[in-house]
Amino acid sequence: MAQDQMAVLKSRLRQFAAVRDWEQFHTPKNLAMALVAEAGELAAHFQWLDAAQSTALPPQKRDAVGQEMADVLIYLVRLADKLDVDLWQAAAAKMQLNETRYPADRVRGSAAKYDEY
Amino acid sequence: MAQDQMAVLKSRLRQFAAVRDWEQFHTPKNLAMALVAEAGELAAHFQWLDAAQSTALPPQKRDAVGQEMADVLIYLVRLADKLDVDLWQAAAAKMQLNETRYPADRVRGSAAKYDEY
Amino acid sequence: MAQDQMAVLKSRLRQFAAVRDWEQFHTPKNLAMALVAEAGELAAHFQWLDAAQSTALPPQKRDAVGQEMADVLIYLVRLADKLDVDLWQAAAAKMQLNETRYPADRVRGSAAKYDEY
Amino acid sequence: MAQDQMAVLKSRLRQFAAVRDWEQFHTPKNLAMALVAEAGELAAHFQWLDAAQSTALPPQKRDAVGQEMADVLIYLVRLADKLDVDLWQAAAAKMQLNETRYPADRVRGSAAKYDEY
Repeated sequence: MAQDQMAVLKSRLRQFAAVRDWEQFHTPKNLAMALVAEAGELAAHFQWLDAAQSTALPPQKRDAVGQEMADVLIYLVRLADKLDVDLWQAAAAKMQLNETRYPADRVRGSAAKYDEY
Repeated sequence: MAQDQMAVLKSRLRQFAAVRDWEQFHTPKNLAMALVAEAGELAAHFQWLDAAQSTALPPQKRDAVGQEMADVLIYLVRLADKLDVDLWQAAAAKMQLNETRYPADRVRGSAAKYDEY
Repeated sequence: MAQDQMAVLKSRLRQFAAVRDWEQFHTPKNLAMALVAEAGELAAHFQWLDAAQSTALPPQKRDAVGQEMADVLIYLVRLADKLDVDLWQAAAAKMQLNETRYPADRVRGSAAKYDEY
Repeated sequence: MAQDQMAVLKSRLRQFAAVRDWEQFHTPKNLAMALVAEAGELAAHFQWLDAAQSTALPPQKRDAVGQEMADVLIYLVRLADKLDVDLWQAAAAKMQLNETRYPADRVRGSAAKYDEY
């Protein structure tokens, strides 16, 4: 049986903040700021790599990237808890929107999709 | 039984990219760039709010924030798929590190934690 | 006589990249990615601070923040050079737009300005 | 005689905020958050482009990119004003550091420079 890993992480984060009395710092504003900072660290790992290099990271780099991804997930889950957002439901709703917005037969193979020009 | 929602989303994203022939754009480099851009959009919603306002978003704003969070999750899950990173495992490892690095009795109530100065 | 500091920095950056044979890494895409990563580091310095703390940084923190701002400026000037963008002209055009878009008597004291809801 | 464009922009931004009573929103924390959000919008323009495409933007896209760069500069100059940071001096100090840290004969042609591993 698949465990609800999201709930496990959410609960662990609550506990982590509570015992440190850090709830006071975890306003949605601060969490959003921490999240984008971690996303920036994630991006930094890729900034000088070309496309091919980015698909074939050496193990040590891949682990470092995985750690930054973990940081992003951690703040995302914490923020979702604070705002009472159901991330799976939000992602499903967004994917449904994307599937309608970008019909496969009209956008196939084109990157001009998300762009406006 | 809890469904494995991460696996469901991962699979939906694979399908979404495949039928549009967008795999070619989904290099880890590009996905990391898209992720930080979405994180920036998320941050933008909070930039002029004070702490109190950010904890009491009007429903319409909260929904808009939830959509940006969905975008972050979508790119994070896609990137994890591409790099074969287990996000739950990475987050658990990071939390274990954090729990060791910030002993509750030493950092309680202090924001000087993540900072070096 | 005021020296053209922007031109001085632009020239120094060209020289810096040329002697290291780093022009190959300085594609606009890579520079934009480096810029957002540095902006994320800048944001990180403020993530746990409240508004009042952010206006009264201790000297060491202020210096660290200044260094991150320098990094942002460096990548911004490098990118402008690569794309042949006149930053002062672009900023003046944007300010003219902002001045029209947000008439003082309609938006005075309201943060709902940049926001859509 | 070169005009001091930085001073001109700084002054225009002060005026812009003052007549709208927006100084109250322009805390360093908020400005740093706005800056990273704009940097994210800048990055978004490049996320699906390959290196070659990013060096040959169509005019309309280049203008849109220039506008995002203007936004970054605007928040950077505003933040520097608030923190009393001399951006040219900070950038010069950072370049001096970079020139020492990355001796041309040791890093020539290598992207492993900024990276630690």
